[in-house]
Amino acid sequence: MKKPEFEPPENKSRKEIELGKEFIPSFNSQGLLPCITVDAESKEVLMFAWMSPDALKQTIETGKATYYSRSRGKLWVKGESSGREQQVEQILVDCDQDVVQLRVRVQGEGTCHNGYRSCFYRAVKNNDKNELEYIISDRSFDPEKVYNKS
Amino acid sequence: MKKPEFEPPENKSRKEIELGKEFIPSFNSQGLLPCITVDAESKEVLMFAWMSPDALKQTIETGKATYYSRSRGKLWVKGESSGREQQVEQILVDCDQDVVQLRVRVQGEGTCHNGYRSCFYRAVKNNDKNELEYIISDRSFDPEKVYNKS
Repeated sequence: MKKPEFEPPENKSRKEIELGKEFIPSFNSQGLLPCITVDAESKEVLMFAWMSPDALKQTIETGKATYYSRSRGKLWVKGESSGREQQVEQILVDCDQDVVQLRVRVQGEGTCHNGYRSCFYRAVKNNDKNELEYIISDRSFDPEKVYNKS
Repeated sequence: MKKPEFEPPENKSRKEIELGKEFIPSFNSQGLLPCITVDAESKEVLMFAWMSPDALKQTIETGKATYYSRSRGKLWVKGESSGREQQVEQILVDCDQDVVQLRVRVQGEGTCHNGYRSCFYRAVKNNDKNELEYIISDRSFDPEKVYNKS
């Protein structure tokens, strides 16, 4: 595949951006694009992360989900330390092309570094005192065994 | 339900934030939280938007998805002009509590103002010239009839 070059969206009309066939991703003022990653089969949201232009290009070229780590200030191939890579089946873009969605297949049994299938493992509920707290899902793997291998 | 007050996450340990049962949403430097909204039944991602503390409180109190419109600088009850309200079935939060996911039931046949069930109606593919372009889904309603009622 040709190395993708992203054209700046400033020269495009709203109609071209929202209804056109041209891929014109719009990065925010920090040069980043929000990315929602879902399981290709179940459609369940697995995680949310950010992409720089290079992260998006690398994802397209390699077919492996690659994000931009804001805390580490560099590209981050998901699964490089855990072995739980994400094979990208499809890339979708929202109406104003400022958010992408990856549909991926995950190697192994989970995505989150805390041992859960999805990073969204807690649901808000009202407790007996009418306060908000979480219901927590069951873990799908032991993170100690995956991330602290000796 | 008690009006929720959100405690600042600065006083909490990483363990309390990531594995605790306490709801401590972490808003970004603009005071906003990314929100992924999915169909409660199919789990399909419908849209991505932002929430201020007031938007999140109002969503919890009313059970109707309420976002913060950055372009209009105010709260935005989804569906207030189209009639396509989102009834919230569940609120999930990610590991570091800086992204929320709403599982909603939508009134009517679509979410996107362009006439699609989801805002993610375009998938990236390679065309014959080995360039990236979109495959576009079929519309689920005519936006002219919904938004330009006379």
